[in-house]
Amino acid sequence: MEYLSSDSVRLSEDEKSVVIIDQTKLPNETEYLTLSEADELYDAIKLLKVRGAPAIGIFAGYSMYVLSLGIDTDDRSVFLNKLKEYAAFLDGSRPTAVNLSAATKRIVKAAEEEKNLSVKEMREKIKRTAVAIHEEDIEMCRKISEYGLTLVKDGFNILTHCNAGPLATSRYGTGLGTLMLGKEKGYTFHAFCDETRPLLQGARLTAYELLKAGIDVTLICDNMAGFLMKQGKIDAVFVGCDRVASNGDTANKIGTSSLSVLAHYYDVPFYVFCPSSTIDFSAKSGEDITIEYREPDEIRSMFYKEPVAPDVKCLNPAFDVTDGKLITAIVTEKGICRYPYEKSLAELFLS
Amino acid sequence: MEYLSSDSVRLSEDEKSVVIIDQTKLPNETEYLTLSEADELYDAIKLLKVRGAPAIGIFAGYSMYVLSLGIDTDDRSVFLNKLKEYAAFLDGSRPTAVNLSAATKRIVKAAEEEKNLSVKEMREKIKRTAVAIHEEDIEMCRKISEYGLTLVKDGFNILTHCNAGPLATSRYGTGLGTLMLGKEKGYTFHAFCDETRPLLQGARLTAYELLKAGIDVTLICDNMAGFLMKQGKIDAVFVGCDRVASNGDTANKIGTSSLSVLAHYYDVPFYVFCPSSTIDFSAKSGEDITIEYREPDEIRSMFYKEPVAPDVKCLNPAFDVTDGKLITAIVTEKGICRYPYEKSLAELFLS
Repeated sequence: MEYLSSDSVRLSEDEKSVVIIDQTKLPNETEYLTLSEADELYDAIKLLKVRGAPAIGIFAGYSMYVLSLGIDTDDRSVFLNKLKEYAAFLDGSRPTAVNLSAATKRIVKAAEEEKNLSVKEMREKIKRTAVAIHEEDIEMCRKISEYGLTLVKDGFNILTHCNAGPLATSRYGTGLGTLMLGKEKGYTFHAFCDETRPLLQGARLTAYELLKAGIDVTLICDNMAGFLMKQGKIDAVFVGCDRVASNGDTANKIGTSSLSVLAHYYDVPFYVFCPSSTIDFSAKSGEDITIEYREPDEIRSMFYKEPVAPDVKCLNPAFDVTDGKLITAIVTEKGICRYPYEKSLAELFLS
Repeated sequence: MEYLSSDSVRLSEDEKSVVIIDQTKLPNETEYLTLSEADELYDAIKLLKVRGAPAIGIFAGYSMYVLSLGIDTDDRSVFLNKLKEYAAFLDGSRPTAVNLSAATKRIVKAAEEEKNLSVKEMREKIKRTAVAIHEEDIEMCRKISEYGLTLVKDGFNILTHCNAGPLATSRYGTGLGTLMLGKEKGYTFHAFCDETRPLLQGARLTAYELLKAGIDVTLICDNMAGFLMKQGKIDAVFVGCDRVASNGDTANKIGTSSLSVLAHYYDVPFYVFCPSSTIDFSAKSGEDITIEYREPDEIRSMFYKEPVAPDVKCLNPAFDVTDGKLITAIVTEKGICRYPYEKSLAELFLS
């Protein structure tokens, strides 16, 4: 079993650089970048080479440590001033990423809170803090995943949407963590993975991560999920979340809410995997959550000509069958028929 | 108002060729092809330059007339033999297209049923029959559309899926006919159009047809339809159909059934537009309808780099909000919460 996670953000062996997988090149190229200059660390976040809120936090912690190595001074206050400059600089790469500024703030606080530390000791504490940020995320993901395992049975067919896997977090991921930890513990799951238009995170990232982890995965288009539920082929739906209101209303990638309606109709359990940092108790309900509208060009242009790793299985049903009882009326050139159609169609056409 | 339909399949002005819009080039190029040779007529169907069951039927009728002009004989039986050869040849271009063989069969029958016709008179009757196939389709679409208009109000927001417009039929289309005829009669509708993965018929064809007809249209990804229904922005869903069982169960493009579940949940009327030729009384229910599975590569590769006409509006919400009551459980690193979440989240995190 290959963990992309333990590779996707880490210190280099000489501990002088941060190593990441360039997520913009996935799934067609797995390219590792070794970064140590402030500008290239900034660009890695800005240009989405590293993405996913927890992953950005882990990256920011290690970046602060690597940058601290280059602050050539033994003067405590000169060191701290430069450290704060780097924190502000990195924070500017994605201003709305909460985990980013939380990580840089925590690093600065760790360095300055004990007044009697030498610069060398401050650097050591920064490193310990960066490692702690990473390890806490692994631990959080592991616990979520263990709780997840109590909700499923071996052999389950699990539908996922968007990407809530190790690439976006640490070892296990949140929404995918149960699948990853389950694999480690010998469970056999089958994953169905929505491609997640328009940016295809499911096709590009989730299908790839599951494939790499040795989990049986089948990619579908977003409009095929209900078809599988109707056939009884989905045992549970697993999604991550971007923000959870105090009443449980959950903001997540577009399409998630529709999956919950389909799951409800077909009586499939629908689970949200949620680090506690994502719960916003100041939001009473979903009405307090503002939805971001993005550029029309994301729909107009297909940025990814080959978005899917070649080995990923795809299921491609061309049609589905709509139950007559869900159709308000069938409009023909001879007239309008209404439910029950055995009667109305026969009366109009067979009598 | 521009009718693509009256242009999309017709006889040329000199009545010696069939003129079509090359549907494989839409929406980026509107290229008209003038075809008269048997091989090029065959290829036009085979290569999907003309597609949509009724449009193929109309094309086949005119093709048979154009080919009959080239049968250089005054001998009735020589003429009929060659005509039947052409019918069999065209039928082979898409063997499962019912409207294709129905049209060629009707043309042959029209030519041979009256024993005393000269070759010249047979050609005239073939032309009348081809025009009749076309006009009957226009009339069928017009009647369906008039019935459709009785189901809506001026100003309605109508969601469509896949393509059931003039390009696939004749002047009005089936699923889009109400919008087209309504436009002619002075109604103002707004259409939301699912892009319809994987082959993007909604993005490439429906959005383009509606735009050309001067109808306000907004393109969305398939996973955004439920988001709009939840916001109360959809007044009705309109879809075409490929086959309707005697109990009203309706096979149509993948994703249609999920739309019906969402429409049911959000109390939005869901209408199927159905030429009576599509009803299969030998199928008792949807279980008697076999679903075609197509090539995985249709999902893997993005065949259309720029599938959308530049003037088409796109709506691109990045997230949606799932109602807490539809979530079976929220899994956090501190434990599993269940509905009602006001209570369970607060107990776990705030007490």
